[in-house]
Amino acid sequence: MSNDPKKSLGIGLAGFGTVGTGVWETLERNADLIFNRSDVKVDIVRIAVRDLNKVRIEGVSEDKFTTNWQDVVNDPKVNIVVELIGGTDTAFDIVAAALRAGKPVVTGNKALLAERGQELFELSNQFNTPIHFEAAVAGGIPIIKTVQDSFVGNSIQSMVGIINGTSNYILERMTDAGLGYEEALGEAQQLGYAEADPTLDVNGWDAAHKAILLATLAYGFTVDHKQVYVRGIERVRATDIDFAKRLGFVVKLLCVVREHANGVIEVRTQPSFIPQSHILSSVNGVFNAVAVRGDAAGDSLFYGRGAGKDPTASSVVADIVEAALGLRHEGSHRGFLPYQQEGSVMSVEDTETPYYVRFDVNDEPGVVAEIANLLADAGIGISGMHSPVHPDEPDAEFVDMVFQLHTCRFGLLKETLKKVEALSCVNSRPVVFRIEDLG
Amino acid sequence: MSNDPKKSLGIGLAGFGTVGTGVWETLERNADLIFNRSDVKVDIVRIAVRDLNKVRIEGVSEDKFTTNWQDVVNDPKVNIVVELIGGTDTAFDIVAAALRAGKPVVTGNKALLAERGQELFELSNQFNTPIHFEAAVAGGIPIIKTVQDSFVGNSIQSMVGIINGTSNYILERMTDAGLGYEEALGEAQQLGYAEADPTLDVNGWDAAHKAILLATLAYGFTVDHKQVYVRGIERVRATDIDFAKRLGFVVKLLCVVREHANGVIEVRTQPSFIPQSHILSSVNGVFNAVAVRGDAAGDSLFYGRGAGKDPTASSVVADIVEAALGLRHEGSHRGFLPYQQEGSVMSVEDTETPYYVRFDVNDEPGVVAEIANLLADAGIGISGMHSPVHPDEPDAEFVDMVFQLHTCRFGLLKETLKKVEALSCVNSRPVVFRIEDLG
Repeated sequence: MSNDPKKSLGIGLAGFGTVGTGVWETLERNADLIFNRSDVKVDIVRIAVRDLNKVRIEGVSEDKFTTNWQDVVNDPKVNIVVELIGGTDTAFDIVAAALRAGKPVVTGNKALLAERGQELFELSNQFNTPIHFEAAVAGGIPIIKTVQDSFVGNSIQSMVGIINGTSNYILERMTDAGLGYEEALGEAQQLGYAEADPTLDVNGWDAAHKAILLATLAYGFTVDHKQVYVRGIERVRATDIDFAKRLGFVVKLLCVVREHANGVIEVRTQPSFIPQSHILSSVNGVFNAVAVRGDAAGDSLFYGRGAGKDPTASSVVADIVEAALGLRHEGSHRGFLPYQQEGSVMSVEDTETPYYVRFDVNDEPGVVAEIANLLADAGIGISGMHSPVHPDEPDAEFVDMVFQLHTCRFGLLKETLKKVEALSCVNSRPVVFRIEDLG
Repeated sequence: MSNDPKKSLGIGLAGFGTVGTGVWETLERNADLIFNRSDVKVDIVRIAVRDLNKVRIEGVSEDKFTTNWQDVVNDPKVNIVVELIGGTDTAFDIVAAALRAGKPVVTGNKALLAERGQELFELSNQFNTPIHFEAAVAGGIPIIKTVQDSFVGNSIQSMVGIINGTSNYILERMTDAGLGYEEALGEAQQLGYAEADPTLDVNGWDAAHKAILLATLAYGFTVDHKQVYVRGIERVRATDIDFAKRLGFVVKLLCVVREHANGVIEVRTQPSFIPQSHILSSVNGVFNAVAVRGDAAGDSLFYGRGAGKDPTASSVVADIVEAALGLRHEGSHRGFLPYQQEGSVMSVEDTETPYYVRFDVNDEPGVVAEIANLLADAGIGISGMHSPVHPDEPDAEFVDMVFQLHTCRFGLLKETLKKVEALSCVNSRPVVFRIEDLG
């Protein structure tokens, strides 16, 4: 390892797709700036790609490339390994091999860390070699460093994030342009905001992976992704978006991480109602934002581009510089994860919020009373009831009836709604959205 | 210096007012958390105060206190010096003495660094000892670390900030509650948001000091505060707030830092019009926010509490931990300021924006033509003209006439407005606000 700031450190890239190209370009473009600011010089010396024929960036000499990732990790000129291939299998092998070789890792792979982080963080501890992963959450927004370093003196009370740009774009278009879900998704795909296979974006798991990483950072124990409640936006309908608007809310795919007593934390991802007056409601398009509440810092919000070539490269480059500075001073990096063993994830049944519930009911007398009685029996308070007849179908036989409910256990709500669903006047499964308390 | 993470590092505080108390409390409350996260243990071992009789926090043993700051800096048990007394004289002596003693400094003193930063940064270089100053800009928002570390790979194109909570509160109350300036200031004072002497807050200099620090960080050279254009909110009137609202803007005390060609940067602070649709317009009350545009990260925004005991303590504690980690590994801190010698501040005459200009004119034929002719002669384009007769004074002899002007040099505008002011139909000096282009 070099202690000489004049000497360049070798970077090995595994993966040279969009982000990898962005990292190359950013390091080329701003090399002097980076050196002036940090005394760090780095060179990309080896690049593993799947297909040598697909490499077509000008200025990158051909002999850097290999199709074998071991060539990157084992190259003695490579001091820092940057994993950008995605997935959780080969990526795991690459990161594990680099850690075993004592080579710091930079990765933007949220799925890898959310699902197999425990193994990798253990290796990181064992080989005293850090994993940097700013790019794994919210692209160009430095939320990892903020939680880990800047809020080191804070007990983190909650983190609420809009951290999937694809979903946010689709919901915005449904809200502002009145598009249906499929139509908005198609538009997002056309614009390159959604992948050809958008599953992980729209089913909530991309956001959930990021929330798991944030929770792991803030609370220091490995959050098991199997215990995390995740719902996507696939079933959000225009009707609910309209109701939300009329009631002063907006629908956002929200990740909520919240601390409860005794090391229990709440971690969940779902489309939620948030007040139009809250600053998170201004987060539009493919932008991301995370609202953090610390016991000292109070309420903060971090907003920016959550994906894309250059924003993600910005975070990867920051991590490369940090890794390089760390190499100069062995062991000078921050503490490793996990930093405490205690902690557990609250069952979603036990989480509590107010709710919006929409029932598809027969338009006949007694319906409100029947539903209200079941809610009353369960001790669930009603804060509002709305039953607009569709203006274009004044004589409809079935109508949407919306209840706003006071805070109660989600488990209790589910049980109660099963009873409501069994009523003969109710035609389908009630639609539930949480109304998030962001006060 | 200790390389043993089990051993506690000694902190010396100079100043034990609101923020100092907050630092003490935060370190007490979250000591275990901080240690678990960072392997850092610190103890406040010495505290300099002006008046021993005013010290009244429980749990702080009396023998820690001294009225002589040298006792703090010279105490061999003190490894890190935290300067929280404010001002630019004694504070300078304390910081300089600590640097000379090789003791890292943590300070939140924006005036000190903005006005005498060059001397202190030179000492910091000379004695290879860092100054950490996260708390100097935007309280609990980690904007310093973000610009310095997280955006190390970015050429910073602009930073636009609302970084004086007092002014922001006053402008908000003038906007939302229709209060006059004096009334809103009085309310801010009653609520403790403004000092008894609010001069530095309302005259723009508190914000300007912070902007100077941000510019120094982003562009690496010492920005001379004498070259920075600064206007406060004292002369903002309800009329202009109303006009702004009607035209789709909101008035905010804005710091603008922008990069131009050849190492020239724009640094200015003034009340400006910003579009109601921009996320900065949602920054209300005593909150702060900084919008940063980087060539890689794109547009980001960092929002939070800009002042107050606990938010400021949050940043001071983060810096203490960073200083402590740095001490374990001599020289492991980031590069020092300034990191480049070139760079200059653009004359305000050369800065360009669109403008809002309000003229107090006689209500008589020919006035618009006279003004428009002078603007035309100067080559300044008009994008809108508004002359509402006050509804409550339909027969007023004098009226407000507002012009929205296309982008032009500020110097040209000033010259031209002098000519307009000389017209016999114009009764007083025209009122100018910049319309900021935040696109």
